[in-house]
Amino acid sequence: MDIISLNQYELVFNAFSFAIAVMGAATVFFFLGRSQVAPAYKTAITITGIVTLIAAYHYVRIFASWEASYAVMAGQVTATGVKFNDAYRYVDWLLTVPLLLIELILVMRLSPAETAAKGTKLGILAALMVVLGYPGEISSVPGTRWLWWALAMIPFLIIVYDLFVGLKRSIDSQPESARGLISTARWLTVVSWCFYPVVFVFPMIGFTGGAATTAVQVGYTVADIVAKAVFGVLIYMIAVRKSAADGYVSGTLGERNMAV
Amino acid sequence: MDIISLNQYELVFNAFSFAIAVMGAATVFFFLGRSQVAPAYKTAITITGIVTLIAAYHYVRIFASWEASYAVMAGQVTATGVKFNDAYRYVDWLLTVPLLLIELILVMRLSPAETAAKGTKLGILAALMVVLGYPGEISSVPGTRWLWWALAMIPFLIIVYDLFVGLKRSIDSQPESARGLISTARWLTVVSWCFYPVVFVFPMIGFTGGAATTAVQVGYTVADIVAKAVFGVLIYMIAVRKSAADGYVSGTLGERNMAV
Repeated sequence: MDIISLNQYELVFNAFSFAIAVMGAATVFFFLGRSQVAPAYKTAITITGIVTLIAAYHYVRIFASWEASYAVMAGQVTATGVKFNDAYRYVDWLLTVPLLLIELILVMRLSPAETAAKGTKLGILAALMVVLGYPGEISSVPGTRWLWWALAMIPFLIIVYDLFVGLKRSIDSQPESARGLISTARWLTVVSWCFYPVVFVFPMIGFTGGAATTAVQVGYTVADIVAKAVFGVLIYMIAVRKSAADGYVSGTLGERNMAV
Repeated sequence: MDIISLNQYELVFNAFSFAIAVMGAATVFFFLGRSQVAPAYKTAITITGIVTLIAAYHYVRIFASWEASYAVMAGQVTATGVKFNDAYRYVDWLLTVPLLLIELILVMRLSPAETAAKGTKLGILAALMVVLGYPGEISSVPGTRWLWWALAMIPFLIIVYDLFVGLKRSIDSQPESARGLISTARWLTVVSWCFYPVVFVFPMIGFTGGAATTAVQVGYTVADIVAKAVFGVLIYMIAVRKSAADGYVSGTLGERNMAV
């Protein structure tokens, strides 16, 4: 383990606790808000809440692993010899990144055939991207890190291009009131996703020791909060606007006109 | 306990944590999604969620048992002397395997008489299969393992044959839109179930020590995720399609016409 200062230790510690609070709160918001969208969007909101629930679980594990890795005594931080488990993030991403793409596809409400085709393609690419990143993440050799980074960037770029171009095309078929939000969701996806390959590169571009560890952990935590919780709120708002545009009024017979 | 390497220890550890996340997420998905199917299919979805909930509970126990069995210090894994508890899996299967068969029978929506007959027969055979497998699982003598494996294969083969042939026959009475999914569920059942007797055999066909332990634990975990969570998503999709084919629209007075 790298030697880190007390300030660095506490910054990461507090960032992890913050993430648990945000992901937990977001999960409850989505699960309760699910009753306020039309049936056609309920699955999208269910999945939005499941993504933050899975992230909350993993941040509880990550937090415990961080605490077990270091001992703080008289203002000094020492490594305990217990390895901090980087795998929790990758296990989380393996599940949540395909689900994030699926929630975006579901809220767009494309044709069933297009939904299935896009969901399968993007889901597989997302899983491939995460699997290719992991061997680099656990290596401390810059050459190895760059190799796996470059390999993971191939599916990454295909997904981002597909979302950016594909979503732009389908925006015209969306109700007027939701177009601005969908455009924002499109940009937020691209910007928040770009955090990850940048954070990955920190240890290869001059951050060393405790600074590298801190930058990577805080960087990934911020990226996760934006890509899952903030993005989820946008998905929820899109679902609410589209429900209203479809003539849906929560809890009324207006529901009668909705497709499942 | 077998001596295992740090990589093997971590692979199993992370596979168990992954299973907890998957089973927990799947449970929430099924319990929320239950409101989106017609009343006739609600019990099938309730049971689908209960299966993954029971599995999530057991993976929490299995994870803790794994952590208690080994101590990791300075990159070395040593056995603590606390036995890893294989029984959690068999207790889980004793409950979940009959329930998995019942969720499949319920979503087919056969006649009440056929549902009761098939549920009783397959449920008893499934419990018998699990009970016969356990004495072999806890033995390290190949001859003993083979004996109980062969005995457990008898109910196993009857169930698989019954499902494969029985389901094929009843597919014709299912709505057009759900037939492809039911055919997929039929194949997924057979393929995912065949994982178990194959994983059981690993220690008898050359995998030894840490490699055998790792192959068995990761193998069973993958099989459980496919047979319970992935299979559950298929059951849910079948229930949604059949609800739509029955003219059900979620959240409307259409529910009035549905049987519970």
